Amino acid sequence: VNEDRFAPNVSVIGFDGDDTLWHSEDAFARAQDQLVELLAAYGPGTDVLARLREVEHRNRDLFGYGVKGFMLCMIETAIEVTGGQIPATDIEGLLETGREMLARPVELLAGVAGTLPLLAERYRLALITKGDLLHQDTKIARSGLAELFETVDVLSEKTSDSYLRILRRLRIEPEQFLMVGNSEVSDVWPVVALGGWSVLVPYPLTSLHESGLSTRPSSPRLRTVTRIDELPALLSGSSGTDA
Amino acid sequence: VNEDRFAPNVSVIGFDGDDTLWHSEDAFARAQDQLVELLAAYGPGTDVLARLREVEHRNRDLFGYGVKGFMLCMIETAIEVTGGQIPATDIEGLLETGREMLARPVELLAGVAGTLPLLAERYRLALITKGDLLHQDTKIARSGLAELFETVDVLSEKTSDSYLRILRRLRIEPEQFLMVGNSEVSDVWPVVALGGWSVLVPYPLTSLHESGLSTRPSSPRLRTVTRIDELPALLSGSSGTDA
Repeated sequence: VNEDRFAPNVSVIGFDGDDTLWHSEDAFARAQDQLVELLAAYGPGTDVLARLREVEHRNRDLFGYGVKGFMLCMIETAIEVTGGQIPATDIEGLLETGREMLARPVELLAGVAGTLPLLAERYRLALITKGDLLHQDTKIARSGLAELFETVDVLSEKTSDSYLRILRRLRIEPEQFLMVGNSEVSDVWPVVALGGWSVLVPYPLTSLHESGLSTRPSSPRLRTVTRIDELPALLSGSSGTDA
Repeated sequence: VNEDRFAPNVSVIGFDGDDTLWHSEDAFARAQDQLVELLAAYGPGTDVLARLREVEHRNRDLFGYGVKGFMLCMIETAIEVTGGQIPATDIEGLLETGREMLARPVELLAGVAGTLPLLAERYRLALITKGDLLHQDTKIARSGLAELFETVDVLSEKTSDSYLRILRRLRIEPEQFLMVGNSEVSDVWPVVALGGWSVLVPYPLTSLHESGLSTRPSSPRLRTVTRIDELPALLSGSSGTDA
C-alpha cells in the first residue's frame, strides 16, 4: 500500500504533560496502594480501589482532575469505607501523602529531554495539559522545558472545542497541528475529529480501561510510538506505517 | 486641577471574576463560621481563624487558591486544633460544606448583568481570574456572561508577567488595557506597574488586610468605584477624579 506521508503540513506540535513528558500516574498508584493498606484492617472484603473510583466518579464534575481532588476523594473514601471510624490521625496521613505528591520533583520520561529541543528547531511547540492549575504551572517551571513552548494551556477538560480555541489563537488550521500524548480520550480523538494529527505514546502504567475507549486505535491521522524520541524520525517521513 | 482623561486609549477591559463579577468570599466566610462553631467545643481559647490562616499560608505554594485547597486546609486545621480527636463524621461535614460551595449557583454582583453588554459594544472584554480551574470554568459558563468575553484566562497567580503574556496574545500595549477587579494585589498594581489602567471595585466583605497592601490606593492610572455600573460614565470621561 502506497501510504500518504504522515502529518506533512504540521507547523505546531502540542504535547500533553502528565505521563507524556513527565511521570505522574506512578505517584497516584503508590498513594492508592497506601490507601488500600490503610483500610484493609477495617473491612477485609472491601474493594477499596473500586470504592475510590466510585467516589472520584461522582465528584468529577465538582473536583475535575488533579492531586487536590484526589486527596479529597481519598479522605471521603476512607470515611465511607470505615463507616466514619477512621481516626483523624490517619486522615492527616492521607493529607501528607497528597502534599508529598504536590511537592515531588518533576521526573522527565525517557527521551524527552533530548527530543524536545530537536523538535523546537523545526516546529512551534505548545504544551496542553489538564489538572490542578498551580500544580501544572509548577511542574512546567520545574521541568526545564518551559522555554521551548510558545504557549502553555492548562485545561479543565480536553475537548475538540477547547483544542479549536487554541488552534485559532495559534492562527493555524487543524491539519497543521499534531498532538502528542498518552490518552486516547484527551489527546487523540478530539484532535483527529477536527482533522488534526496525533501520536499516542502509551504510559506503561495506564491500563487500557483508563487510557481510553478502543482496543486498538486506528486512523490514518494517528500513529503509536513507545518513546517520544521516535518522533523526529516519524515526522521526517522515514518511519512507515502504524502496523 | 486640569486632569488628563482617564484611560483614553483603552481597547481591552479585563475583568476579575470572584467578588468582582459574582459573589465568592461570602461563601468562604460562612464556611469559616461553621468551622469555628464546630471546633469551639474542643478548645474555647483557640483562635480557629488564625490557625486556619496559618494552615492556608503554609500550603499556599502547594494548593494555590480555590475551594479544593480551602477544603483541605479546613480539614487540616480541624485535625490540628483538636489534636487528632475530631471524629471522621465531622470531617465528612467539612467535605460536604466544600462540595456545596463548588455546586453553588453563580450570583452576579449588582450592576454586572446590565453593564457588561454595554461595555462589550465599545471594548474587547477579557476575563482574567484565579482559583480552581474547573470551578472557574464552571462559574464562567453559569454566569451567562461567557459570550461577552473574547478570551478567558484562569491563572495560578496574577503577576505583571502573567498580564503581559495576555496583552501580547491580545496584541495590545499596556496603555490600551484596563483591569477591573476587587483586589489591589492581583488586579491593580501588577497592571499599573506595566503602564496599564485599573479600576478597583472593593468587595464589601474583603477586609483591607486581605484585599491588598495600602491604606488608600493612589495612582493617576487607578480609580475606585463602589459598583461596576459606574464604569461606563467613568470611561466616557464624564466622571472626574478619584477624590
